[in-house]
Amino acid sequence: MIYLDNAATTKPSVSAFDKARVFVTERYFNPSALYNEGFALQSELKKARSALLSPVADESAFELIFTSCGTEADNQAIFSFARRGNVVTTAGEHSAVFAAFAELKNRGAVETRIAPLNKDGSVDVDALCALVDNKTSLVSVMHVNNELGSINDVNDIAKRVKQINPRVIFHVDGVQAYGKLAFRLAKEIDAYSISAHKIGGLKGVGALIKRKSLQIAPYIIGGGQESGKRSGTENVFGIMQFAYAAQEKFLLLRQDYARLKDYRERLWELLDKDVYTRISPENGTPYILTVAAAGLRGEVLLHMANDKGLIIGTGSACSSNAKSRYSKAVIACGYDEKTADGVLRISFSNETTQEEIERAAAILNDIGNDLKRRMQ
Amino acid sequence: MIYLDNAATTKPSVSAFDKARVFVTERYFNPSALYNEGFALQSELKKARSALLSPVADESAFELIFTSCGTEADNQAIFSFARRGNVVTTAGEHSAVFAAFAELKNRGAVETRIAPLNKDGSVDVDALCALVDNKTSLVSVMHVNNELGSINDVNDIAKRVKQINPRVIFHVDGVQAYGKLAFRLAKEIDAYSISAHKIGGLKGVGALIKRKSLQIAPYIIGGGQESGKRSGTENVFGIMQFAYAAQEKFLLLRQDYARLKDYRERLWELLDKDVYTRISPENGTPYILTVAAAGLRGEVLLHMANDKGLIIGTGSACSSNAKSRYSKAVIACGYDEKTADGVLRISFSNETTQEEIERAAAILNDIGNDLKRRMQ
Repeated sequence: MIYLDNAATTKPSVSAFDKARVFVTERYFNPSALYNEGFALQSELKKARSALLSPVADESAFELIFTSCGTEADNQAIFSFARRGNVVTTAGEHSAVFAAFAELKNRGAVETRIAPLNKDGSVDVDALCALVDNKTSLVSVMHVNNELGSINDVNDIAKRVKQINPRVIFHVDGVQAYGKLAFRLAKEIDAYSISAHKIGGLKGVGALIKRKSLQIAPYIIGGGQESGKRSGTENVFGIMQFAYAAQEKFLLLRQDYARLKDYRERLWELLDKDVYTRISPENGTPYILTVAAAGLRGEVLLHMANDKGLIIGTGSACSSNAKSRYSKAVIACGYDEKTADGVLRISFSNETTQEEIERAAAILNDIGNDLKRRMQ
Repeated sequence: MIYLDNAATTKPSVSAFDKARVFVTERYFNPSALYNEGFALQSELKKARSALLSPVADESAFELIFTSCGTEADNQAIFSFARRGNVVTTAGEHSAVFAAFAELKNRGAVETRIAPLNKDGSVDVDALCALVDNKTSLVSVMHVNNELGSINDVNDIAKRVKQINPRVIFHVDGVQAYGKLAFRLAKEIDAYSISAHKIGGLKGVGALIKRKSLQIAPYIIGGGQESGKRSGTENVFGIMQFAYAAQEKFLLLRQDYARLKDYRERLWELLDKDVYTRISPENGTPYILTVAAAGLRGEVLLHMANDKGLIIGTGSACSSNAKSRYSKAVIACGYDEKTADGVLRISFSNETTQEEIERAAAILNDIGNDLKRRMQ
């Protein structure tokens, strides 16, 4: 089996899992407990926080709140900061942000504004900036688009937005960027959501990075864990496994980036251009290659690939529950429905090998041509 | 080390953990994915749902939504159902419920009403019923009090409340009852919160059981997982480990109940009555014995016990972040601050042995008398 749906979820790091196992078998205490064993877990959580935060942000200016997933981190940021006036996001956002904006619109307390995308899937920054005014309370822009791999220069966008209105809270959904791209958060970024299971962590763990000086409302309310910012007993095992997995990823981040960029281009080079059109931009994340087999149905190709032992996606797994069969982001880039219907997302991890890339290309060419023949 | 703080968190079942490991090493897919391996996980989640639901409820009438913890399940129920008029809870609730009611009061959209406790820690049902009227939208009553172990007959209370106002939504925080007491949800119960880590599951997993016919708003919004009722990629590994751990617990529930009741009484019998007063009622959960060393500080005794290898609690670990040093529930039962200050919560699990009980009693008598002498 060749697994190339890593943007949906990655195989967890088994070494990180086994290393964290001690927090199940021996150090299973409640980290809020007042005895030594509880306190010691608080210091482990502090180490995990630092291991996850320090590679991307200045620890004197930023802090990290553990959540149960990227979606919760996005929800907490959006519902905490969308307090008045208008709020701005992009047409390419993951449903964790987009559905939260739809809910805000539904509640009617703030006006929601959606910036259009460029053809390459990045946000049209001029159009976004034109939506920001002195009544804007929140701007939320994703770092890497989960369906196309397009990268938004969020540090630069945040600077431009704050030149228009310095009181705006600038939030970034960084779920597809964290642990994959080299970056450091500029001081203009107020909050940044991350997720464990996209980089070898477990499902059920995420975090919201935020500027220390910024007040945030808790979204889950109760015992006051996470310094009152997220209640519920901390998922110690999941958090430690996340920290260990992230450390592995950050250690090899630049090498993985360069290698996967070669793999992505190699895969594109091998694909039959009579069947596949490239959707992902060259300057996007090397972890995602999205193509379209225009005139064919992506979902049929996905099943044909599956039968041959190749696992790929058609877009966001988180959209599979949605009513529309088309990728929202691909349509927002200006592609027609025929193209959007044939979209395949092929996404890599640090474990992906060159041999898998070549076998995947052969399978994709086989099934693409096979289906094309059958459709004629 | 003798671990008797199982009401704060239990040691996870290592057999359940190892059994679920395959969902990390091999079956790590996104359960929303459209290929066979994703679908197969949906059917595993369905089996887990049934394993967790069927021992306590009629599956034709109730369904189960996975959440990230008991606190999230409580928050979702309360914020979804506290829509208008007034909402009623008890003075003994866990902070996951109590803080959510405080937030409701703060928002001002509904009136919050708090029913008093009896001396034994159970809610005064007549007083609760007197607070319910035709404007009540929600009543939330905990099943087992986490600080005293008192049991509320929630099925009966729900029936009485619905006789007053059949439109009330009746929610139960069942975190300290589920997997420990034998019960089945009456049709008058609308929603019931549970948590994995109190019965051998992992931290970071919980669920809300609810009547199928009852609409509930999602609290985490995004990709529409859990049939639109809880977004965020499902924590497959944590959920499967929870289901396996719960199956182990339910298999031996009645034997454990009877044995731990004996242990609890044996511990009380062995404790020096010149030092310790019993707070927990005899008809409470056998998993908790709360005592008070009036005139002594519980926290000091906790540390002295810790030094001798005995781990106990002073109340809810989830209250350790709170400003008050006194157990809210113990004060609500009518005890004075001197008694409340000396409270120790000794809580058991199915792994607790008689030898541990006897050694714990000896340590508690030693340190209690030691501290008492030093205080004179």
